[in-house]
Parts: sequence; structure tokens; C-alpha cells
Amino acid sequence: MKIAIYGYGNLGKGVECAAMHDDSVTITGVFTRRAPETVTTCGAPVYRADEIDRFQKEIDVVIICGGSATDLPQMTPALASRFSVVDSFDTHAKIPEHFAAVNAAAKAANTTALISAGWDPGMFSVLRVLSGAILPQGTDYTFWGRGVSQGHSDAIRRIEGVLDARQYTVPVENALTAVRMGENPTLTARQKHKRECYVVAKEGADKAEIERQIVTMPHYFADYDTTVTFISAEELKQNHGGMPHGGSVIRTGNTGTSGEHAHVIEYSLKLDSNPEFTASVLLAYAHAVCKMNARGDYGAKTVLHVSPADLSPLSEEELLAHYL
Amino acid sequence: MKIAIYGYGNLGKGVECAAMHDDSVTITGVFTRRAPETVTTCGAPVYRADEIDRFQKEIDVVIICGGSATDLPQMTPALASRFSVVDSFDTHAKIPEHFAAVNAAAKAANTTALISAGWDPGMFSVLRVLSGAILPQGTDYTFWGRGVSQGHSDAIRRIEGVLDARQYTVPVENALTAVRMGENPTLTARQKHKRECYVVAKEGADKAEIERQIVTMPHYFADYDTTVTFISAEELKQNHGGMPHGGSVIRTGNTGTSGEHAHVIEYSLKLDSNPEFTASVLLAYAHAVCKMNARGDYGAKTVLHVSPADLSPLSEEELLAHYL
Repeated sequence: MKIAIYGYGNLGKGVECAAMHDDSVTITGVFTRRAPETVTTCGAPVYRADEIDRFQKEIDVVIICGGSATDLPQMTPALASRFSVVDSFDTHAKIPEHFAAVNAAAKAANTTALISAGWDPGMFSVLRVLSGAILPQGTDYTFWGRGVSQGHSDAIRRIEGVLDARQYTVPVENALTAVRMGENPTLTARQKHKRECYVVAKEGADKAEIERQIVTMPHYFADYDTTVTFISAEELKQNHGGMPHGGSVIRTGNTGTSGEHAHVIEYSLKLDSNPEFTASVLLAYAHAVCKMNARGDYGAKTVLHVSPADLSPLSEEELLAHYL
Repeated sequence: MKIAIYGYGNLGKGVECAAMHDDSVTITGVFTRRAPETVTTCGAPVYRADEIDRFQKEIDVVIICGGSATDLPQMTPALASRFSVVDSFDTHAKIPEHFAAVNAAAKAANTTALISAGWDPGMFSVLRVLSGAILPQGTDYTFWGRGVSQGHSDAIRRIEGVLDARQYTVPVENALTAVRMGENPTLTARQKHKRECYVVAKEGADKAEIERQIVTMPHYFADYDTTVTFISAEELKQNHGGMPHGGSVIRTGNTGTSGEHAHVIEYSLKLDSNPEFTASVLLAYAHAVCKMNARGDYGAKTVLHVSPADLSPLSEEELLAHYL
């Protein structure tokens, strides 16, 4: 499989790294909107984003590593009109709209375009749908963390007097335990997650005011128990430099004549590097996109449209003999 | 969806019960090799197994609830030559052979026949394949239990002097913890699972000899730390009457330039009733079989060939809007 990496932030770097460990993948190039000479990769050649069309014969799938807010709504339909693609569009509320735009472009061009790959949306979506189909009488729970939320960290950084910040989303242990025991609790946002903020303040900044602005910030923090800890820039770098994340999708449900038997299905992830794991998911789905395109399955797809056999690099014979 | 339930043991009863809670399903009948008047269902009409052909127009899928050892290798290909079917064939080593026989019958008859549904093989297979595709540099672990193993319980019952028995397969907690911590241990059978046996002996039976025969039994017990506890028939009925089971499929793997980031993916099941959960999986895949057959996707299938969208009763629009 010959891939292009379109965008080279944390996610693009993760895709390059995953592809380098996969013998069946060749990286045709990294395509960037920055000046190519300013971008240092782990070995992949770098080109200007607008050069991608001249590589059409050397690219099976473009893995689009742009942001969901402004990049992907433009990039994915545009690229899907010339290439099969995978993206990680994660604005849940706008997925139907994005799917429709990408589908029109891909259907017209006989390409296959898989959107919203990653782990949530992505693997968590797959597990929600599988578990819901198996236990129709039941309840879904999703817990995130312990992990760094980029969006919440950015929100803190925008406060006056803040130099840098990391926000950890942390599941409330009691709530997680109650769900795992099959107690089917009804949980508010505050009862499910708490938020831990590590903040580097500018010299002379009003720390009490920074803390007040964080814990009262609507949507981001006001509905949660939030702790704010001021630390030095060195401490932030040393102890909070990673991008760990994870979480659990849990379905509890009942069977039996009158629901007398309880069942718990849990899928959980513990990730040292959120962008590298997400990149690994994107690369796996790029393989599936190739197979689907080769058999004429065109248009927009999501992880919900891909069978495990299509995702796997193994042959039908190997799967039947060793993986069932 | 109109279903037939072919065979009416614990699994068949579980399918009937699951179908009664699913408004989109009608049970055309339970088909049995016993005398129909001796079989009491929860409401479904009962017919002789050899009467099934006259219901061809009233059956979309036959859910075959026979045993893997001798029933399914005959039943599934025979029924697949007249009906779309789902079975729970679980003799792992013989799956390729069974698949080939069923595939020939189903292809010739334009039916869709999904074999080896359940949780292992079944959901555990799905998770092994998904997780392996996402983390190609990694290791798989499967732990079963705590739960009742019918095969091991039966093996004990065949020993001279044994009236009844229940065997629990129990994961070794230390091993499970080490795997979850990403330590990638190499584990023998004994290091992964232990076996707890509860045995009702006949009056005057040689208990020491029964225990010796259990713990030295090749394949079943000799390779495990096995405990044998003799109890009364009343105690067995009261405390060990259920059929709980479960387990975990864990994939640990690494990403990064030199594998410096570790990740753990875990799928776990805690089931109050093994046959009722298995039955719920079979019924869910019966829905997928209907969809696949309707669009001309004929032949033998496994859970690895079914996309989450095909398994789900929800529409494309609902899935895109609420489940990604």
C-alpha cells in the first residue's frame, strides 16, 4: 500500500512512525502547507500540499491529518474527489453533514473515503454498536481518561496570565465501579469525570483569578469537580510532557424471562500516546479502504461499515484457522 | 424477521427468550428431535425437526442450537442447503473444514450461513482481529472465567463414583494483573488459569481416588492447579446451579520510533448466564444474516465478515448521528 500523509502534526508523525513499522506500506510523501524545507520527518520525503496531484499514480490512500474544526470539512471532500482517503473527523454533532459532503465527492470519483477513524469516534463507536446489538435491553456508559485533553488544555492556555497548562480528564472511580458491578446508575457529568489542571502562571500573575476563571468556565469546567495546581515550566515539561489517554465503553444489560440475568461488556484502552494510537487506527483503516476500493465499494464509509476481515492484514485462510 | 429455533437445550431456550424481547422477531417454531409433546417452551410452537421444510416460506433464518461435536457438522450444511442459518460451532481446530462444507451448501442454494457465533469463538474473535490489526507489534492474551465449563464438568461426571459436578475455570489474578500492566509475560497454561471442582460423590465412593483421577486427567486438569471440594447434592443445587462465565481478550502492543509507547486494549465479559448471552449473540447475527442475504451476499460467513452496521438494528442515519 502506498500512502500519502497530508498534514504533519502529532497525528501525521504518528502515522509516519506506524507506517515505518509496517513492511506492506510505502510512504510516497508527507504533504504540508508549511514550507517543505522547514519540516523534518523521520525519513519520508516532504512536498508542498498543492503538489499532491502529480503523485496520483503513486498514492493508494491519503491519510488526512488535519484538524476537525476548520481543516477536515474542506480537505476531506476535496481530496476524496481525487484519492481514496481516511480522516479522523471528531466533531460528533457534524458527522452526518461531513459524511454527506465526502460521500458526494467520493461517489462521483469512484474513490473510497473513510471518515472519523480513531478511538472516539472510532473503536469506541464500533464497540457501542456491537454491544448494543447483542444486549438490546441495556445501558451504555463511556468513561474517558485518565488522559490529557488537548481541548481543555488549550482553553486554560487562553486565560490571561497563563503560560502553559495540561488538563487531565479522570473518571470518578466510584462511578466506574458501580457501572462495572452492573448497578446501572444514572450519572451526571460531575459524577462521571473530574478534571485536574496543571498550570504554569506568568510571573506576577493573579493565581486566584486564574483558578476562578478555570473552575467557572462554562462547558469546559463548571459542571465538573476541578482541581488547579500551579507548577513550574520545568515540572510541566518533566512530569506532564506525555500525551497519555484512554477510557472505557461499558454496556450493561439483562437477559432471561424477566431480565433476571445481568451481563457486563467492557472495552477499555490504556494508551501511552494518544496521537500514536490514533495514527495506528488510521493506518489499519487505510488497509481496509484499499480492499474496499479494489472491489468497487465506493463512497463515504465509517468504521461501522468495515468488517473485521477487511481490517485485518491476514488472509481468509489464516483468519479461519487461527483467529476464530 | 421470522426465525426457527432448531434444537431446544439451554441455548435454544436462550434464543427463544431473547427473541421474545425483540419486537422485530417472530418465532415460527421450535424444531426438535424429541417428541414435540414432551417439550415445553415459553410459548413458541413446537414441531418435529423433520417437519421444517414445510415452513420454508415462514422462516428467514434458522438458528441452529445443536452441539458442536456431532450435531452441527451434519446439521448446518444440511439446513444451509434450504435456509439461511446461524450456528455456534466451537471446535476451533475444525472451523476451516466446517466453513468449507457449509460454504458449498450455501453457495449452491443462495443462502447465507454464519458459523461459529457466540463469544469464543465469536465476540472474542472479533476483538482479537480488530486489536491485532490496530497494534501489529503486540501480543494477544485470552483469559476465561470465572465461569462454569460444561466440558470440564462433564469430564468429572464420567468418573466412577461421581454423581454430579461443576468445574469453574478461574484466571490467575497475578497473571491478569501483569498482562494489564503491559508487562508482556510468557505464561504457561498453569500460570494463566486454575480449576475449581465441586463434586457430589455417591455414598461410599472412594473420594481420594476420585480426586486423584480428576487432578491427573490429561488435557483437562493435569496442566493446571486444580482444587477438588466434595459437597452435597443440595449444596451443588443451591450454590452452583447457575451458568456464569466471562473472560478477557487483551492485546498489548507498542508504538513509537523504537516502541517506547505501550498500549493495552482489553475486552471483557462478565456474564450471569453463558447460554443466554450466547443466544443473544446468535440472534444479533441472525439479523445480519438477513440483511446480507437480502443484498445477495451468499455463502458461509463468520463474525469476522460482518460489519458493525450490518449487526445493528439501527438505520444508517441513526448510526451516523448518534453512535460514532
